[in-house]
Amino acid sequence: MTGGKVLVAQGGGPTAVINQSLVGVVLEARRQRGVELVYGARHGVRGILNEDFVDLTQETSHNLELVAGTPSSALGSTRDKPDVAYCQEIFKVLQAHGISHFFYIGGNDSSDTVRIVSEQARAAGYPLRCVHIPKTIDNDLVGNDHTPGFPSAARFVAQAFSGANLDNAALPGVYVGVVMGRHAGFLTAASALGKKFADDGPHLIYLPERTFELPKFLADVKAMYTRHGRCVIAVSEGIHDASGQPIAAQLAKDLEHDAHGNVQLSGSGALADLLCEEIKGQLGIKRVRGDTFGYLQRSFIGCVSDVDAREAREVGEKAVQFAFQGGAAGGRDGSVAIQRTGTYSVDYALLPLEAVAGKTRTMEDAFISPCGTDVTDAFRLYLRPLLGSGMPDAFRLRPNAVAKVLRP
Amino acid sequence: MTGGKVLVAQGGGPTAVINQSLVGVVLEARRQRGVELVYGARHGVRGILNEDFVDLTQETSHNLELVAGTPSSALGSTRDKPDVAYCQEIFKVLQAHGISHFFYIGGNDSSDTVRIVSEQARAAGYPLRCVHIPKTIDNDLVGNDHTPGFPSAARFVAQAFSGANLDNAALPGVYVGVVMGRHAGFLTAASALGKKFADDGPHLIYLPERTFELPKFLADVKAMYTRHGRCVIAVSEGIHDASGQPIAAQLAKDLEHDAHGNVQLSGSGALADLLCEEIKGQLGIKRVRGDTFGYLQRSFIGCVSDVDAREAREVGEKAVQFAFQGGAAGGRDGSVAIQRTGTYSVDYALLPLEAVAGKTRTMEDAFISPCGTDVTDAFRLYLRPLLGSGMPDAFRLRPNAVAKVLRP
Repeated sequence: MTGGKVLVAQGGGPTAVINQSLVGVVLEARRQRGVELVYGARHGVRGILNEDFVDLTQETSHNLELVAGTPSSALGSTRDKPDVAYCQEIFKVLQAHGISHFFYIGGNDSSDTVRIVSEQARAAGYPLRCVHIPKTIDNDLVGNDHTPGFPSAARFVAQAFSGANLDNAALPGVYVGVVMGRHAGFLTAASALGKKFADDGPHLIYLPERTFELPKFLADVKAMYTRHGRCVIAVSEGIHDASGQPIAAQLAKDLEHDAHGNVQLSGSGALADLLCEEIKGQLGIKRVRGDTFGYLQRSFIGCVSDVDAREAREVGEKAVQFAFQGGAAGGRDGSVAIQRTGTYSVDYALLPLEAVAGKTRTMEDAFISPCGTDVTDAFRLYLRPLLGSGMPDAFRLRPNAVAKVLRP
Repeated sequence: MTGGKVLVAQGGGPTAVINQSLVGVVLEARRQRGVELVYGARHGVRGILNEDFVDLTQETSHNLELVAGTPSSALGSTRDKPDVAYCQEIFKVLQAHGISHFFYIGGNDSSDTVRIVSEQARAAGYPLRCVHIPKTIDNDLVGNDHTPGFPSAARFVAQAFSGANLDNAALPGVYVGVVMGRHAGFLTAASALGKKFADDGPHLIYLPERTFELPKFLADVKAMYTRHGRCVIAVSEGIHDASGQPIAAQLAKDLEHDAHGNVQLSGSGALADLLCEEIKGQLGIKRVRGDTFGYLQRSFIGCVSDVDAREAREVGEKAVQFAFQGGAAGGRDGSVAIQRTGTYSVDYALLPLEAVAGKTRTMEDAFISPCGTDVTDAFRLYLRPLLGSGMPDAFRLRPNAVAKVLRP
C-alpha cells in the first residue's frame, strides 16, 4: 500500500521521549515516495474528531529535531477511548481529508484505540493502514522487551532514590517514595538501580505484583530500621490488598475515575502520607518523611536515557517502514514492538494489534526476590543497559575513625 | 593564628553541593603549613559531642574529588542546636583532641550554632577559630548574594516546572507544584525560570513574602484557566495567612516541630492535596493534579549547577584562607559570604557571625511583581547565571494549521 496522506497522533500520558517517536514518523514518512502530506492530529483521537490538524510537511527538519529532544507530547494528548460511534466520526474526518495511514503513539489504552479504529476501518471498507507505536513509562505492554519512555522514567526514579538514600543517610529516619505504576511494578523496581553500597536504600520495595499487608509492611520497616538506623522505602502507587483493592483507593474519599475506568492514583500525596502516619503511629519512629514522585518522574526535563531516546526514534521510523515497505514483516496493521537481540542491542517487530491491545504486562517472577520486597540480579541486568550512559554515581568517605580520647 | 588540628562538620539540610565545600576545606587545610590533622565530625555538632571523628588526612585526594561531586552531606548532618550546656560538652571534646580550628558548613541555624560555640570558646578562654561556611537551598542567609546549594535546587525546580508545563499543555488541567522554602520564596520563584513561551506556566507563583488568601487564589486560578484552558501553579510550602499562620499548618492535625521550633512543612503532600481539593470543589475543574517536590529538590543526583558546584568549593577554600592567612579580611571568627562583583562573577567576604547568625533573608520587593503572583525581570537576571551551563530547553511545533473540510 502506498498513500498520499499520513496522519500521526499521540495518546495517553506523555513521556520524556515520545516526541522522538513523533519525529521518527514524520521524517521517515516525508522520505517515502508518494507521500504528499504528513498531518499531526492535536490531542490524539480527539483532534481527529475536531479536524484539528497540523501540517507537519511544512515543519523544518531542524525544528523537528529540537522538538524530538523536548519531553511531553508536542501534538498534545488525550485520555479519550473511542467507541464505535466515536470511530465512525473519525472515519468521516479521515475520508474527508483522504488520510491513508494512521500512526498512533501510545500505551495500553492507545493500542486498544488503534485496534478499534483498524476494525472499524475494515468493517467500513475504508482503506486505512493503522500502526500503533509503543510508549509508556509503566513498561506494561506485552510482546515488548520494554517500552519507550520507561527507561528515562526509570532513570529518574533510580537517580531520585540514589539522592534520597544519601539524604536519608545524612539525616537518618524513614523515607517513603511513592512511584507511578498502576499494575506493573517496573518503575518502582527501578529504584533498586539507585543502590550502590550494600547498606544503601531502597531497603524495601513494594510492588503491585505482590499483595500488600500493612502489618507485614510495618514489621519489615521495623526490622530494617533496627538494622540500619534508617530505612528508605520504594512503594508503587498501585499496591493493593489481597482482594485487589488499591491501598490508595481505600483512603481516598472522592475517587476520581478517568474514561478508561481507571482510579486516579497520581496527583495526590495521600498514599505516602498514610504510610508515614502508620510508621509514626505504630512504630514510634519520629523522623518519617514521604514523597510522591508524581508527574516529575514522567515530565522532568533533562533526565533522559540516550538509549531510550534512540529507540523511541527508531520505533517511529520502523512504524513507517513496516507500513510502506510491506514484505513479510509489514504491509499490514499492527503494533511495533521492541525485542532484545543482545547485551545490549534490539530489533523491531510488527505484532498483530490483538496481541498487544488492552493487555497488561506485569513483572516476571524472576525479577522479584522471593522475599517480595527486593528485585533480583536478573532485573538489574535487564534494566541497567536501558538507563543509558552518564548515570551519576555516588561516593563515600572511607572509614578512618579517630580514636576517642574522653570515652575510649 | 596557626594550628595543628582542623575540625570540619556539616549541619542542617543536605544540598547537592555541600560536599564541594567540605572538600574545599579539607584540601585547602591540608595545604596549610602547620596543619597536622584534618578531622571530620560525623553528623555535625552531635558528632563532636560523641567524639565521632573521621581522619580526613588519611583520605586520598582522588576520593575526596569523587565525594565532592556526590550530593548530600558525606559526613552526615544533624538538626541539633547547641545550648550553653551542649557547648561546654563540645569544648571538653575539642580540648581533649587539641582542635584549633572549627569549620561548620550550614544554613541559618548552623550559623547560630557557630556563633554560640565561638562565644562559649571565648568565654571559656579556649583558643578556637570558628568559621561558618554558608549552605542552604532556601537562599535565606543575609549578607550573601546567594548561598551554595540554592542554585542547584533552583535548577531542579526550574527544570521540574519546565517539564510540568509541557505535561500540562499535552493534557490540560490545573497543576499545583509545592516547593520548599519556609520563609523565603527564592526557590519557589525559581519556577519562573522554567518558562519560555509567553503562555507557558507557571502562570501563578505564591510566595511566603506575600499573604495567601484562598478566595484570591481561587479567583486567580479561574482567570488563568479561562485564559489558557489550563493553569500551572508554583506554591511555596511556607505560604501563610495574614496572621502569619502557615496554610499547611492549618491543615495538619499533628504538627511536628523540630528542635529549632520549626513546624514540619516538608515530607507531606497535605498542602498540595488541600489546594487541589479547593480548586476541584470551588471551581468545578475536573483535571487537577498536585505534586509536592519534597526531598527530590534538594537531594536529586544528577541535577547540579556547575556555577554552584564551583562556588561551593570556593567558600570552603576561602574559609580556610580567611582563618589561616589573617590580614585585614581574616584572622577572626566569621561567616564566609558570597558577593556578586559582575555579570557574572563573585568574590568572598568574611562577615561577623552576629551579622548572619539566626537572621533570615526574604525576597526583595524588587524581585516580586506588583500583582504578587509573578517575579520581575530583575529576579530573572539575578537567578539566570546561577543555574549554570547546559540548561535543557523546550521547543514547540510551529503552527501550520490544516484547513477544516467538514466544518470549515
